[in-house]
Amino acid sequence: MAPCQSLLFLFIISLCVTLTAPANSLPTLFPPAAAHQSLIKQAKAPKPNLPFNTQYFPQTLDHFSFQPKSYKMFYQKYLINTQYWHKGAPIFVYTGNEGDIEWFAANTGFMLDIAPKFKALLVFIEHRFYGESMPFGKDSYKSAKTLGYLNSQQALADFAVLIRSLKQNLSSEASPVVVFGGSYGGSKFKKKPHIVLAAWFRLKYPHIAVGALASSAPILQFDKIIPWSSFYDAVSQDFKDVSQNCYEVIKGSWAELEAISTQTEGLLELSKAFRTCKTLHSTASVLGWLWTAFVYTAMVNYPTEANFLKPLPAYPVQQMCKIIDKSPSGATKLSRAFAAASLYYNYSRTENCFEVEHEVDTHGLHGWDWQTCTEMVMPMTCSNESMFPPSGFDYKRFAEQCQMKYGVLPRQHWITTEFGGERIEKVLKRFGSNIIFSNGMQDPWSRGGVLRNISASIIALVTEKGAHHVDFRAATKDDPDWLMEQRRQEVEIIQKWLNEYYLDLGHA
Amino acid sequence: MAPCQSLLFLFIISLCVTLTAPANSLPTLFPPAAAHQSLIKQAKAPKPNLPFNTQYFPQTLDHFSFQPKSYKMFYQKYLINTQYWHKGAPIFVYTGNEGDIEWFAANTGFMLDIAPKFKALLVFIEHRFYGESMPFGKDSYKSAKTLGYLNSQQALADFAVLIRSLKQNLSSEASPVVVFGGSYGGSKFKKKPHIVLAAWFRLKYPHIAVGALASSAPILQFDKIIPWSSFYDAVSQDFKDVSQNCYEVIKGSWAELEAISTQTEGLLELSKAFRTCKTLHSTASVLGWLWTAFVYTAMVNYPTEANFLKPLPAYPVQQMCKIIDKSPSGATKLSRAFAAASLYYNYSRTENCFEVEHEVDTHGLHGWDWQTCTEMVMPMTCSNESMFPPSGFDYKRFAEQCQMKYGVLPRQHWITTEFGGERIEKVLKRFGSNIIFSNGMQDPWSRGGVLRNISASIIALVTEKGAHHVDFRAATKDDPDWLMEQRRQEVEIIQKWLNEYYLDLGHA
Repeated sequence: MAPCQSLLFLFIISLCVTLTAPANSLPTLFPPAAAHQSLIKQAKAPKPNLPFNTQYFPQTLDHFSFQPKSYKMFYQKYLINTQYWHKGAPIFVYTGNEGDIEWFAANTGFMLDIAPKFKALLVFIEHRFYGESMPFGKDSYKSAKTLGYLNSQQALADFAVLIRSLKQNLSSEASPVVVFGGSYGGSKFKKKPHIVLAAWFRLKYPHIAVGALASSAPILQFDKIIPWSSFYDAVSQDFKDVSQNCYEVIKGSWAELEAISTQTEGLLELSKAFRTCKTLHSTASVLGWLWTAFVYTAMVNYPTEANFLKPLPAYPVQQMCKIIDKSPSGATKLSRAFAAASLYYNYSRTENCFEVEHEVDTHGLHGWDWQTCTEMVMPMTCSNESMFPPSGFDYKRFAEQCQMKYGVLPRQHWITTEFGGERIEKVLKRFGSNIIFSNGMQDPWSRGGVLRNISASIIALVTEKGAHHVDFRAATKDDPDWLMEQRRQEVEIIQKWLNEYYLDLGHA
Repeated sequence: MAPCQSLLFLFIISLCVTLTAPANSLPTLFPPAAAHQSLIKQAKAPKPNLPFNTQYFPQTLDHFSFQPKSYKMFYQKYLINTQYWHKGAPIFVYTGNEGDIEWFAANTGFMLDIAPKFKALLVFIEHRFYGESMPFGKDSYKSAKTLGYLNSQQALADFAVLIRSLKQNLSSEASPVVVFGGSYGGSKFKKKPHIVLAAWFRLKYPHIAVGALASSAPILQFDKIIPWSSFYDAVSQDFKDVSQNCYEVIKGSWAELEAISTQTEGLLELSKAFRTCKTLHSTASVLGWLWTAFVYTAMVNYPTEANFLKPLPAYPVQQMCKIIDKSPSGATKLSRAFAAASLYYNYSRTENCFEVEHEVDTHGLHGWDWQTCTEMVMPMTCSNESMFPPSGFDYKRFAEQCQMKYGVLPRQHWITTEFGGERIEKVLKRFGSNIIFSNGMQDPWSRGGVLRNISASIIALVTEKGAHHVDFRAATKDDPDWLMEQRRQEVEIIQKWLNEYYLDLGHA
């Protein structure tokens, strides 16, 4: 079977970002980068109807150098809701990730739900180089010369500058700020964990935020902190936990896919079997299409029907495995895998055919590839235990591909140098405070998260049945008790931070 | 009398950096910037004979952006002493300030003194753009395009990257790192407080340093955190505490100087009275010459004879005031001030005349001016209570001057946005740990320091009789009890941090 590194690349970089060249000898499965990149189309999703005003803040291009061009200003978008706010009451800030800020606002109903209780001002700040917050307008993605300013430290500084200015303009310097970090956590194109920004913001800017709720933040996914196979092992475990057969069918489907790829009429056959809208040019896209469905379904294995990445039923992994387990006994593994994946792509039953090769980026997420090629190096492999083809991680090759694409090399150890992560429990045991790391164990990102309390105020809230930042979603009438309890605890802890803050203020 | 802002500029920017144009209407006192800048000569001090090896580390130019040119490497110098080190034992790192690293090493004997007790490795890292650590060689100071990379955040990141790499190369990842920040604190040309780097480093990089000893770190000297007149009020208080008459003589001397400056033969008369080596071109330099002597003598009002900025006797402020108070009754205030200042410039009695207009930068300190014109905006004024001519701070004018000099504007609120400072006691009461802020109240910088314990492990060590980081100096047989006690406490606290660290390590 194909060494997994390339599959990994296909997934992490292609599905999470853009498609890259193969790292192995199976060209039929892996089309060259350029071909695939052209397949990803930019499109705008319809703007959700949200209770926010849109504002634009004049932001500094480069906070960390003082060349004349560092002073260039651009407009950073943010959304604001003042309807519940009483002056002096808290400000809840969502530290935007890489995509249109409206999408995050639409999927973080938790903040709106709790705003009345806290009389909180709500602010959702868009991340630079995403959505409308483009420092160089349409040229922002032109080359490394412009993209160079897209990184997490600049983004954190943006938040700091914007929050400080906003508080001053509102004459509310004394209002405590709590930051919330949620990520879309994945999409057809990008799987990314920028919830880490909220935790990092509290760690780097404690004078600006009194606390952070970091939901599903894999701050340990870097360098060698956790085993590189953790992520895909966790995805596989989700399926195995539902049904051993389900896991084995998926695990066996890749060999069948590979076998077809060598047949003369393989692509035609596959196009038909996968009901593709257009005849396939390669089997690589089928691999990615299946892979995406399994990984993202694991991530959003929510306890209620939801529409985050795609409309899906409650506990969609169970539903997928039900499809696999109940398939006619003569069905191939690949056809079962297809049937299961169809749940992900067509639960709403609106698709007559599948755009397997034509992925559409509806949320403006295309900057993540750059970030993985510079600072956000997250090595991942597939172990023999995973349901994906085994693979390694070849840093040298990865670096070469980044160099080829952008003309710059990744800085492999930079994130852990700047933000730490190794021995985090020991470091933060005696440093820092007021962070909630919430994780749901269904979410494969949880393996890179903080899963145990570090100190009295650096708290891990872990739910066995939770998925990717399920706590951030708006409450529904079907929410299970454990989810309501998790949110209740979050509110209680945030209230504690605020009480302490106001107490300190009163004793000035 | 001249509004103090310009005097202030003369002092802060000219004496601490380079000379700037006047902000007021007394041109005879204030020559234009260019004229003065040319008077400051670069010269190399003889290298002290130190027990260190010199090393050069390939450092990244720009840690916070990923443009192709951000990747440029330069050699960062550091000094290392391994003679006391046992593997696994601590690493004591001096976070270099703006000047040749040898000079700092020579004036931080404390670290050498305590190294054997801790079996510590000693490392002194030079700050980028100072000494030999020039990213663009001789062109480093060419313009804002190159100088743009000179700032504190890049310097802190340099330290982080270098320390991490060094530990890896020594296979000593588990060795705890303690950072020490001491500054030369002032010189004939620059008064600067970069001891703040050690405290900031612990706050931003707790995963790299287990603790920081920040001696005389005025981390509150920014924005509006402390009254702008604090610094000069403190200098004045030092003199007033010794003798009310001494304070009044100095306070009255400026009017006499101004009066002479309007006389036809004023400059000739002054040249003679001040024993200048060459005839004076303006009285501004005399003003700066006197000012420097009083301010820096207050800063280094050490309890023992010492040679930091200049050779000086024990408690030199007392000695200066003795000179003033014991002058013949008919002597003018200006002549008494001159006699007192002569102690600063000629305690060693080696000077036959004074180079009042020809200041020499022997320690490679010339980058501080850039830093004050970009990030390190420290407004200072002279109140009516100070012994200096009253003055305000005109930010707009200051910004214009920076724009004129470098083509860029200061970022007035950046340091407090990036590093905090406002309400520091409340913020750090619930965040962070393991910092010692040591201050001597004789040191005017102490007014911008942390003078009260913030938490159980963010400690203020304050001595009434201490001066600018006197605790960092090598022990001498004449050290008073309070100084020995201060150092004993520092060692005890550092030992506590290390014990905790090793305890945590053992209980992994």
